[in-house]
Amino acid sequence: MASHLVKVAPTVAIVFCCGICGVLSAQTPKDAAHGWRVAHEEQILQEFTGLLSIPNVANDKANIRRNADRLVGMLERRHVAAKLLLAGDANPVVYGEIKTAGAKRTIVFYAHYDGQPVTPEEWDSKAPFTPMTRTVNGETRIYARSSSDDKAAILAQLTALDALQAAHIPLRANLRFVWEGEEEAGSTHLREVLEKYRDELGGDVWLICDGPVDQSGRQSVVFGARGVTHLEITVYGPNRELHSGHYGNWAPNPAMMLAQLLAGMKDATGQVLIPHFYDGVIPLSGLEKQAIADAPRNEDKLRQEFGLGRSDGGGQSLLAVLNEPSLNIDGFSSARTGSKANNVIPSTATADIDLRLVKGLDWKTQQQRVVDYIAAQGYFVTDTTPDKGMLVDHPRVALVKLDAVGYNAVRTPMDLPISQEVIAVVESARGPVVKLPTMGGSVPLEMIEQTLGTPTITVPIANYDNNQHSANENIRLQNLWDGIETMAALETME
Amino acid sequence: MASHLVKVAPTVAIVFCCGICGVLSAQTPKDAAHGWRVAHEEQILQEFTGLLSIPNVANDKANIRRNADRLVGMLERRHVAAKLLLAGDANPVVYGEIKTAGAKRTIVFYAHYDGQPVTPEEWDSKAPFTPMTRTVNGETRIYARSSSDDKAAILAQLTALDALQAAHIPLRANLRFVWEGEEEAGSTHLREVLEKYRDELGGDVWLICDGPVDQSGRQSVVFGARGVTHLEITVYGPNRELHSGHYGNWAPNPAMMLAQLLAGMKDATGQVLIPHFYDGVIPLSGLEKQAIADAPRNEDKLRQEFGLGRSDGGGQSLLAVLNEPSLNIDGFSSARTGSKANNVIPSTATADIDLRLVKGLDWKTQQQRVVDYIAAQGYFVTDTTPDKGMLVDHPRVALVKLDAVGYNAVRTPMDLPISQEVIAVVESARGPVVKLPTMGGSVPLEMIEQTLGTPTITVPIANYDNNQHSANENIRLQNLWDGIETMAALETME
Repeated sequence: MASHLVKVAPTVAIVFCCGICGVLSAQTPKDAAHGWRVAHEEQILQEFTGLLSIPNVANDKANIRRNADRLVGMLERRHVAAKLLLAGDANPVVYGEIKTAGAKRTIVFYAHYDGQPVTPEEWDSKAPFTPMTRTVNGETRIYARSSSDDKAAILAQLTALDALQAAHIPLRANLRFVWEGEEEAGSTHLREVLEKYRDELGGDVWLICDGPVDQSGRQSVVFGARGVTHLEITVYGPNRELHSGHYGNWAPNPAMMLAQLLAGMKDATGQVLIPHFYDGVIPLSGLEKQAIADAPRNEDKLRQEFGLGRSDGGGQSLLAVLNEPSLNIDGFSSARTGSKANNVIPSTATADIDLRLVKGLDWKTQQQRVVDYIAAQGYFVTDTTPDKGMLVDHPRVALVKLDAVGYNAVRTPMDLPISQEVIAVVESARGPVVKLPTMGGSVPLEMIEQTLGTPTITVPIANYDNNQHSANENIRLQNLWDGIETMAALETME
Repeated sequence: MASHLVKVAPTVAIVFCCGICGVLSAQTPKDAAHGWRVAHEEQILQEFTGLLSIPNVANDKANIRRNADRLVGMLERRHVAAKLLLAGDANPVVYGEIKTAGAKRTIVFYAHYDGQPVTPEEWDSKAPFTPMTRTVNGETRIYARSSSDDKAAILAQLTALDALQAAHIPLRANLRFVWEGEEEAGSTHLREVLEKYRDELGGDVWLICDGPVDQSGRQSVVFGARGVTHLEITVYGPNRELHSGHYGNWAPNPAMMLAQLLAGMKDATGQVLIPHFYDGVIPLSGLEKQAIADAPRNEDKLRQEFGLGRSDGGGQSLLAVLNEPSLNIDGFSSARTGSKANNVIPSTATADIDLRLVKGLDWKTQQQRVVDYIAAQGYFVTDTTPDKGMLVDHPRVALVKLDAVGYNAVRTPMDLPISQEVIAVVESARGPVVKLPTMGGSVPLEMIEQTLGTPTITVPIANYDNNQHSANENIRLQNLWDGIETMAALETME
């Protein structure tokens, strides 16, 4: 933790004013948020790093609960009615509600408090849950798991409430806060929660506060997200590693088999070759295509930054190819490499793959297309670890573990009145925004639409270069500050 | 260590008789070895497990020295003149010599006392240097690194000396023992040692006591070995892992790139597709082809044992394809798999590859053929870690680390007089042998031939299913016992 952080100031009791209160502020929500933040940076950071210090991998039930309880406390300190929404084995959803007299609308702010799994030795700090500040190109960043994905959004929403109250700026809509605890584990129980707590969770729009802003640094408003699912493929060579001299040329090598299987899935430009992979994709509307055409082109900058001598997609823009489904190797492994490598024929080879989906595709169908492809390459496909009999009976065996969870893409039409209003409100705080039909990442928006009938619009706040899902995840501090202003504007929507 | 082992008996002073000694035995060397072994099993095992308990990875200089000193002591206890042959940074070669009056020949027994690197957590025992006995299919095996590769050969050679002495069987040739300490690290200094100690190391034949016997269990005599070298390929995606949603379809995935690069190196039957890979291979002679045709066919048994539903080689026999060069993926890795997998585009992907060579091929040329292939696939090939500038300047960059060491294959003609004599002597102990032109594994025979002008013939003793080079390396105890008899016969060659 950064040594300059001071003890948190005692929390002031906050009462939210509705339109009929006598004391109205002349400040805009953005100005109020700015002023509050400048005056309270250390207090805000203390609350933030305290939250980041609680480990939050979804399967760590004890710490997940500590996160949830902490968040309830943070809501209650702001006099927001708060509770945990519990359903079966689900990690608790933290829920907060502000009822505003005379409100015509209910705005739901979604974020998630769980984070991706961590491999501490890959982090510079070796300690993903010990927040560290570091200066990068003259700008301060905070490094910790979920610093950007997605606890920053929660802090921005809460701090915006503080600022609005201090400036006596009234709320106009009912506000609801819904913070999920297993988004990074695939939101396996979210549908159950939505169905059980339909009354609490409905609203006129869900604002999804997750993901990064545009790589140009400009604020974005995003009207959809790709769906996602995942699968793991293991292929088999000899049932124990064999000496590559005594058996090389004769015992099939599973690493080579897997390489050949994977290689056939894409061409050299990244186009997926699996039959029917693109079947059913709903093309972009004219408005959506125009939004992409109007967006900044960041590819040259990104190639420089990432050290890339080329990009996939056959010359299309990044934003264009994010509106296509993808197949991505998350990692592969077989025996050992580097100083641990031995001259052996490995016994198995494994690859993890994620599939991203766009509007019109179904995640189970997309999984099956990959399975069908594997089978068409001569593999006997099994979903349980093969025994020796199965291995001997088939020239090629692939164990394919399909994720039991996944979700489809959504794309809220940009021409809905609520869509146009959200754009206007965000622009009041952040200037002209980048409007995107689809963000590349995935959030479980489909089940919100399906279960509640509520459209979703995503308003991210994190910097794009935040290492989310990897080691050294971070938030650029200015993005957190800007996010507070954006949330303040949205919290005062009519 | 097995609990039934008793303390080693005090070593008896041994004087080797030459042909002019008065006391001659009526026993054959095989019978003498058998009798000695049956009467001294616990003592033999105590000496063996003591040796196996000393870690012996070649870069562990302190323990390598402990091994070498122990071996000198074991020779000296048998009154064999012993010393360490030192050259530069080389791990010591343990050298022993018995001069026999009136000898017409000098027979050199080669083995190595270093072992493959270990990954203890992969061993059932978690302790590769704590020898364990276990019963497999009713037969005892000893598990430890180098239990078969190659300390068993050293124990067999020494125990055979004990047996011959006890039975008053005279030696007839001069014997030399040459035990290398860095064979598994590529014998990087062996040529230097051979040149420096030419007088000590010459002889009429080098008997290479390394590797496994035929899979049928029959003793084999092998007239050559494949050469070997190694290389490592790393290809590059973004210079840090990227979120597969936000960049998938656009940022090139190095795991997919490496899969495509590797996949093109072989066809589905294992035939190498790299141009010129087979150019220069010297075909087998008629005698060599006949030896392969006469050898047992073990393929069906091996496929059952290894759980293989097919084999590479387009229907050729195992022994036939071992007489061809090979390209084998030792392992590959990119990001993480299984429960550690994240939805990322990895930053790098790495594969380790070993190349086996047959007579007529040069290891440096073979490495270059692979490099040329990689370049022909559009890669800029570098031998140092690329910086961002290099990565941005080239669509594809591959770091290829070529091993600075390697060696070529040898094949001693089967019709030399010494070849025919070795076959006859081994058959006197073990019955009809399997005669192989080439074993699949590699030992640095070429530099022995080149430096000393001495032909090499390999007489292995280990079981074929010994997990050498992997976790749970083991020796079937009966193979050690048989090996003692084989060595006794060879030590009494004329």
